[in-house]
Amino acid sequence: MNKAALSLLLIFVSVSSAFGKYVPKGGKRIPQTLSRGWGDQLIWAQTYEEALYWSRSRNKPLMVVFHLDDCPHSQGLKKAFAEDNEIQRTLDEDFVVLNLMYETTDSHLSPDGQYVPRILFVDPAMTVRADINGRYSNRMYAYEPSDNKLLLSNMKKAKKLLKSEL
Amino acid sequence: MNKAALSLLLIFVSVSSAFGKYVPKGGKRIPQTLSRGWGDQLIWAQTYEEALYWSRSRNKPLMVVFHLDDCPHSQGLKKAFAEDNEIQRTLDEDFVVLNLMYETTDSHLSPDGQYVPRILFVDPAMTVRADINGRYSNRMYAYEPSDNKLLLSNMKKAKKLLKSEL
Repeated sequence: MNKAALSLLLIFVSVSSAFGKYVPKGGKRIPQTLSRGWGDQLIWAQTYEEALYWSRSRNKPLMVVFHLDDCPHSQGLKKAFAEDNEIQRTLDEDFVVLNLMYETTDSHLSPDGQYVPRILFVDPAMTVRADINGRYSNRMYAYEPSDNKLLLSNMKKAKKLLKSEL
Repeated sequence: MNKAALSLLLIFVSVSSAFGKYVPKGGKRIPQTLSRGWGDQLIWAQTYEEALYWSRSRNKPLMVVFHLDDCPHSQGLKKAFAEDNEIQRTLDEDFVVLNLMYETTDSHLSPDGQYVPRILFVDPAMTVRADINGRYSNRMYAYEPSDNKLLLSNMKKAKKLLKSEL
């Protein structure tokens, strides 16, 4: 192809894409992901209802991560969490995962308040595992970036299902 | 850079990325998006709670789209919906948007059943607009790919807020 033809093709492509798809006034946006940076390779549930359904039907415990984009503690934990391959692999293989930036209507998911970051486990029998907590007595379900080992050990606890004998 | 150095660099990059990030056994996955194909340029709420909060605080009506990946009617509507620039622009500028593959616990969102595809509008005053419906009497909130004009006219109805006089 000669240069003139290539230029024409490029003009055609940019014109047709400008007319072909809606572009917001502020410019094209990167599509939001369900992972929100907590593990792009995991299959995230979108809502608590969906997550509970998956947990029951697959008989896998559910991990719910509450976080906020403008919270530096959430951001720090997210980085450590997303980069820890053992956490990611275990979640992918043995858990249902949900991350939320808004609270649900289920108060069992905030046993000691609605702070972030906060990680709760839910058994497939739909019991919130308030017994599985981090190291801070005033914010029982908070974790720090350096708490990955504790989080992994808590994930092992969550894998021992409450009604596994049934 | 010569070819040998380039090859070494490529090997280094692939090795470090193989060790650097968790990759599922079945191979790398494309991260899921919140749009799920209904408009990558729109800012989608993740949950109904989040959507209601945005709707109230921004005083914009909420559109909720119920759909399923394995439903050909949902897929057909999705294509027409995502490709219609007037729908996309209006939603981006004047609405809060939410698409769900799982039902919520709010029965007001299923006035005549839980079929898909189904589109409901919610006023910022948190009233589900059961008065805004499509053309099918047995499935009042269903739309077909050819119903874009009706959908746009319904969006205009939804923009006339119930309590706009307040």
